[in-house]
Amino acid sequence: PVFLLIGITNLSATPTEEMNGAGNLMDFLDEPFPDVSTYEDFHTIDWLREKSRDTDRHRKITSKSKESIWELIKSLLDAWSGWVVMLLIGLLSGTLAGVIDLAVDWMTDLKEGVCLSAFWYSHEQCCWTSNETTFDDRDKCPQWQKWAELMTGHAEGAGAYVLNYFLYILWALLFSFLAVSLVRVFAPYACGSGIPEIKTILSGFIIRGYLGKWTLLIKTVTLVLAVSSGLSLGKEGPLVHVACCCGNLFCSLFSKYSKNEGKRREVLSAAAAAGVSVAFGAPIGGVLFSLEEVSYYFPLKTLWRSFFAALVAAFTLRSINPFGNSRLVLFYVEYHTPWYMAELVPFILLGVFGGLWGTLFIRANIAWCRRRKTTQLGKYPVLEVIAVTGITAVLAYPNPYTRRSTSELISELFNDCGALESSQLCDYINNPNMSRPVDDIPDRPAGPGVYNALWQLALALIFKIVITIFTFGMKIPSGLFIPSMAVGAIAGRIVGIAVEQMAYHHHDWIIFKNWCRPGADCVTPGLYAMVGAAACLGGVTRMTVSLVVIMFELTGGLEYIVPLMAAAVTSKWVADAFGKEGIYESHIQLNGYPYLDVRDEFTHRTLATDVMRPRRNDPPLAVLTQDTTTVEDVETLIKDTDYNGFPVVVSRESERLIGFVQRRDLTLAIKNARQKQDGVVSSSVVYFTEDAPQLPASNPQPLKLRRILNLSPFTVTDHTPMETVVDIFRKLGLRQCLVTRSGRLLGIITKKDVLRHMAQMMNQDPESIMFN
Amino acid sequence: PVFLLIGITNLSATPTEEMNGAGNLMDFLDEPFPDVSTYEDFHTIDWLREKSRDTDRHRKITSKSKESIWELIKSLLDAWSGWVVMLLIGLLSGTLAGVIDLAVDWMTDLKEGVCLSAFWYSHEQCCWTSNETTFDDRDKCPQWQKWAELMTGHAEGAGAYVLNYFLYILWALLFSFLAVSLVRVFAPYACGSGIPEIKTILSGFIIRGYLGKWTLLIKTVTLVLAVSSGLSLGKEGPLVHVACCCGNLFCSLFSKYSKNEGKRREVLSAAAAAGVSVAFGAPIGGVLFSLEEVSYYFPLKTLWRSFFAALVAAFTLRSINPFGNSRLVLFYVEYHTPWYMAELVPFILLGVFGGLWGTLFIRANIAWCRRRKTTQLGKYPVLEVIAVTGITAVLAYPNPYTRRSTSELISELFNDCGALESSQLCDYINNPNMSRPVDDIPDRPAGPGVYNALWQLALALIFKIVITIFTFGMKIPSGLFIPSMAVGAIAGRIVGIAVEQMAYHHHDWIIFKNWCRPGADCVTPGLYAMVGAAACLGGVTRMTVSLVVIMFELTGGLEYIVPLMAAAVTSKWVADAFGKEGIYESHIQLNGYPYLDVRDEFTHRTLATDVMRPRRNDPPLAVLTQDTTTVEDVETLIKDTDYNGFPVVVSRESERLIGFVQRRDLTLAIKNARQKQDGVVSSSVVYFTEDAPQLPASNPQPLKLRRILNLSPFTVTDHTPMETVVDIFRKLGLRQCLVTRSGRLLGIITKKDVLRHMAQMMNQDPESIMFN
Repeated sequence: PVFLLIGITNLSATPTEEMNGAGNLMDFLDEPFPDVSTYEDFHTIDWLREKSRDTDRHRKITSKSKESIWELIKSLLDAWSGWVVMLLIGLLSGTLAGVIDLAVDWMTDLKEGVCLSAFWYSHEQCCWTSNETTFDDRDKCPQWQKWAELMTGHAEGAGAYVLNYFLYILWALLFSFLAVSLVRVFAPYACGSGIPEIKTILSGFIIRGYLGKWTLLIKTVTLVLAVSSGLSLGKEGPLVHVACCCGNLFCSLFSKYSKNEGKRREVLSAAAAAGVSVAFGAPIGGVLFSLEEVSYYFPLKTLWRSFFAALVAAFTLRSINPFGNSRLVLFYVEYHTPWYMAELVPFILLGVFGGLWGTLFIRANIAWCRRRKTTQLGKYPVLEVIAVTGITAVLAYPNPYTRRSTSELISELFNDCGALESSQLCDYINNPNMSRPVDDIPDRPAGPGVYNALWQLALALIFKIVITIFTFGMKIPSGLFIPSMAVGAIAGRIVGIAVEQMAYHHHDWIIFKNWCRPGADCVTPGLYAMVGAAACLGGVTRMTVSLVVIMFELTGGLEYIVPLMAAAVTSKWVADAFGKEGIYESHIQLNGYPYLDVRDEFTHRTLATDVMRPRRNDPPLAVLTQDTTTVEDVETLIKDTDYNGFPVVVSRESERLIGFVQRRDLTLAIKNARQKQDGVVSSSVVYFTEDAPQLPASNPQPLKLRRILNLSPFTVTDHTPMETVVDIFRKLGLRQCLVTRSGRLLGIITKKDVLRHMAQMMNQDPESIMFN
Repeated sequence: PVFLLIGITNLSATPTEEMNGAGNLMDFLDEPFPDVSTYEDFHTIDWLREKSRDTDRHRKITSKSKESIWELIKSLLDAWSGWVVMLLIGLLSGTLAGVIDLAVDWMTDLKEGVCLSAFWYSHEQCCWTSNETTFDDRDKCPQWQKWAELMTGHAEGAGAYVLNYFLYILWALLFSFLAVSLVRVFAPYACGSGIPEIKTILSGFIIRGYLGKWTLLIKTVTLVLAVSSGLSLGKEGPLVHVACCCGNLFCSLFSKYSKNEGKRREVLSAAAAAGVSVAFGAPIGGVLFSLEEVSYYFPLKTLWRSFFAALVAAFTLRSINPFGNSRLVLFYVEYHTPWYMAELVPFILLGVFGGLWGTLFIRANIAWCRRRKTTQLGKYPVLEVIAVTGITAVLAYPNPYTRRSTSELISELFNDCGALESSQLCDYINNPNMSRPVDDIPDRPAGPGVYNALWQLALALIFKIVITIFTFGMKIPSGLFIPSMAVGAIAGRIVGIAVEQMAYHHHDWIIFKNWCRPGADCVTPGLYAMVGAAACLGGVTRMTVSLVVIMFELTGGLEYIVPLMAAAVTSKWVADAFGKEGIYESHIQLNGYPYLDVRDEFTHRTLATDVMRPRRNDPPLAVLTQDTTTVEDVETLIKDTDYNGFPVVVSRESERLIGFVQRRDLTLAIKNARQKQDGVVSSSVVYFTEDAPQLPASNPQPLKLRRILNLSPFTVTDHTPMETVVDIFRKLGLRQCLVTRSGRLLGIITKKDVLRHMAQMMNQDPESIMFN
């Protein structure tokens, strides 16, 4: 769904706080609909209100806890429920991640063949128990048969190749068709990476069902299908979505979280951390990702809880051990040589490449997604997925680097060439006279295998760059981390091999002289791949700190933090020079979500009076007076307008603001009073003051509504600079704010007014945001 | 100086923003004192004002940059100055940390002996070039002579021991005397750890000179002296202070930072990160420490810059290589065995110990510091330091574990017992029949050396626990990280050895059965020491995430994150049960700094009307009217009150607020008008409106002051719950806020009113903050 900023005029409503008035008429308002939150779909929450509701709840529990032991225990349980939710989120998201990993492994291999001893084994598991001892032979263990071999009995030859090729495409099409159909039929929200929407939700927007049980189930299943189909997408972003669904699920167990949208978002922030934690096996990186990239309101308490959830999730995943290496992380590597100062030059060049690629990708992908939104293309999502899968499968199969799963590819590219490595990339010409320990292998001339691999990698690079643009944004779960990292890793490995060969063949050059003597192990191409991956991921998402932390948790080596940081910062600078927005912000904007980015700085000289409504030629602001409006007037006002709330003033002449009343509360209160309270008729006066107004005896009984009046609406003066107003909206999470001058009510500013104004200013003067 | 919350009635002043009025009379106000910031000492800054001033500056530069190439270059330089400052801070604080490390090494060893080949060599450096090959012999290389050997020629014997003992005490006294004298004479602000004050400064308080050049110089020198004197203190906290001084120094190079207290604090946050980064060699931990523990306003931009500064600092330190091990970190350890689930029990027990110790330490230390403040004791700081140093030296020398520097002790406790280890702690009984590789050493029975070491460690533990209470808070630079870690490490190592021996001797017990077969390497006492150190540090400072990250950067092993986290969280829970405040918050409270902690949750039901002034029996609020006050009235008001500013209302009858005017601006404007503007006399009317009021012709010329009026003062209604008010003060960094009801001005709430109210509420109902 598209939520346009423009054209929606929901003045939003404010808290019905516990007032000091004596009214007890409106007690029914306390819990109007027991199971429904008080916000409507696609509306913005009021953070201040949520916070004060939680404090009220908390106060009640605390005061009750003194009454009896049972209440004390209940209050203790309530205090610990936050940690319990974190534990549950960690356990479930860790388990789901493990199951997804195992299923993806199996189904990816299913495209090529099947395990005869047990069909539910993946290639690696199948050959694990085999008796072959070398790595090479183990890969070709007899229990594992390719489809052609199984069907025709011939493992080699053109016929077998074509049959395998055909079945590979068929499986891919089947998986992706299943994925897109499930998404279409059962859970449309399960598509995409989910991170733009989660950012928006965390900033205070309501999208019902986005984190629901169906979405959780369907996203988990279709994620496996989508990844297994061999499309150029990853599981990292969707895993964050899955973890947030888990968070939402467990929120519903505790009324503390299920009934308070603010508290719920604290849990979701922590769940996002758990999601990244299991996606990469990087708990600290996950917490920082949630902090840097996803979350909006991230108090220290959430920091601690996120960390706990991330740890539990990582630990659960490690217990499941899907990678079979007892390691927490997806790409565990160990390098044996330090890096040299001179290598910073290629690292920074990789950063530039990452930044450029990030910019290119964002622009092209947004252009394509806009096309999908606005043209006929968007009407055939199933066909689109089938077509892209078909093209991907046809092009990917012939190249060994694209045929396998992308994470395996990255893993191989990151790896250092040890002595036992059988990969094509490690086909160096060995000097038989030299015998060195396993770990310390000197630089050697590249053999034909390496040159062959370079060609294939170059083709894979072009293929990945192009196909990812069309893949991200289709109606299936699709993450962007893995494809971005793959592009960077391929580019990095190519650069790394180039530098290595240059250093080997030209070790008399001045730059290599002190650094790389012949026979020494001085360039690690795997490190270049890692730096390149970080650069590309940084260019696309604009992460810095969390990115470096994730990469360094992946490798477990502090030594490489400077190269990674150099590349990440360069990539961010380069990409920012072409446009401040990362891919997630761009998608948020494309979809028109009301997201107030904390990073945008508003530097224009406009004042609150330029933004508030009513504008100059608009009708005057719809207000209520404190003691002269009748029930009929109120009902007319509610019927004629669609504002979410109305300011209450002393009188139309003085225009002095006394409070703000919510449309929903007003409707309910009047409806109820008409039904239950005798003497309330259309001509009854509605009053918001403490005491009833002096009325002629002939008048019908007045209706007291002070109970639903918010006596502390947020106000600014008309001269307040908009930058301050933006700051206030951002930091306090307001929905709306009233504008006054010398105590007189002039107008109102809603979050949407602010967003619209910011967008206008941005378009008007795009240069001014370049420097900060 | 003591900044009491109570009794100070500085109503603080608000922005003089760029108004849309046409007044040009007051142009001289733009830069009243070119080199002096507009805040007074011991006052609070107004974050919103600083932010809007920076935006103004930025807007000016941006619009100018279109005029010429030169201006464009200037604007680019301005945009990059943030990164330049970070680079400089990183370089200088890294260098200083390296120099301090080297100097401390040398001077600590100087207490015991001297290097004959070059007196400026430390023991290790001196023996580095020696020809002895074993570790043991190298320690006793001939170039290094103890004082007794040098003076009397006898290296052994009772006489030599006594002489060495005596000289050790003498050197210690000399160092500490020098340290305390330098602090007293040149820079009183150089004492203590500095972190409580930096937290206060970062929250927006002004303490002039606290981060000055003298403080930097003296703190660096006296830190070396204090640490070398063998007192139970560390250099970590003071290094943060030193790095912040560097930050402040470089701020003065750029007007962007030197003239804006808000921007300056962004730089200081990053500098704090650089400080921790070099203290431990943990750049990510440093950033998280700054985020979790020290900073108040930490936008994402600061996060990136902090990371950059922390990295540069760590890299600079590594280039200096003071530890001689090419490692970034202070305590590099590598463990060879994983940990087992059952070990979580002792780890959690260590967490409980850490929490209890943290509580005990904070209470005892605060009690002692209060005593120092209030009794005669505080008048003799030099004597106190001398006395504590004397007692420390006398008690420390006989025990080898307290004689050496505390960081060496921690390092030894963290270490795993390899085959080459010659330490007493590694004196296990070897089984001569077993030959195993160097790294994989099975558990063995403890030898007499270990039992001996255990006794000495137990004594050292008691000694450290007691002496640290009296040391922290003396008038010398003193950090708390190292002593806390030492206490935890000793306790942890003792527990670790106990578990190890239990596992060895009772491997048939049910809990050890699957975990620890005889001859296997299953318990690593060094890991227990590390976990204990984390627990104690967590108990004292209440850090969690940054603590775990620092510990894990220290060891470089992701595998131990769960034990560390378990201990850190337990320790925090246990300590929090006895009192929410960590040592830094306690010291902030003790000193009465106006610090609004982001972590305290305010859950009381009070309203703004309960907190605002004037209170019920106070004289009415001092206000100005917009067009009826005379110059004389204003001067009387200024003379009679000491408020920092005055609200301006339409008239005393209507009390409708139109703005807020700062005392300083008012004084300056009237003084200037009297001197420069003809016709302004005592009976002239002062007006704040756009147009001059209608006055009889006989009246003297009125004085227009609209230019200095802040037209957008922050207001809340009297019914606003205090929790919302606290939230607003915290998030927007306000100095004061006006209270209105239906547009009428009722009163004012300043930051100090808020703090005082929170303190009152806290004391009244201490239970209610236990749960959150």
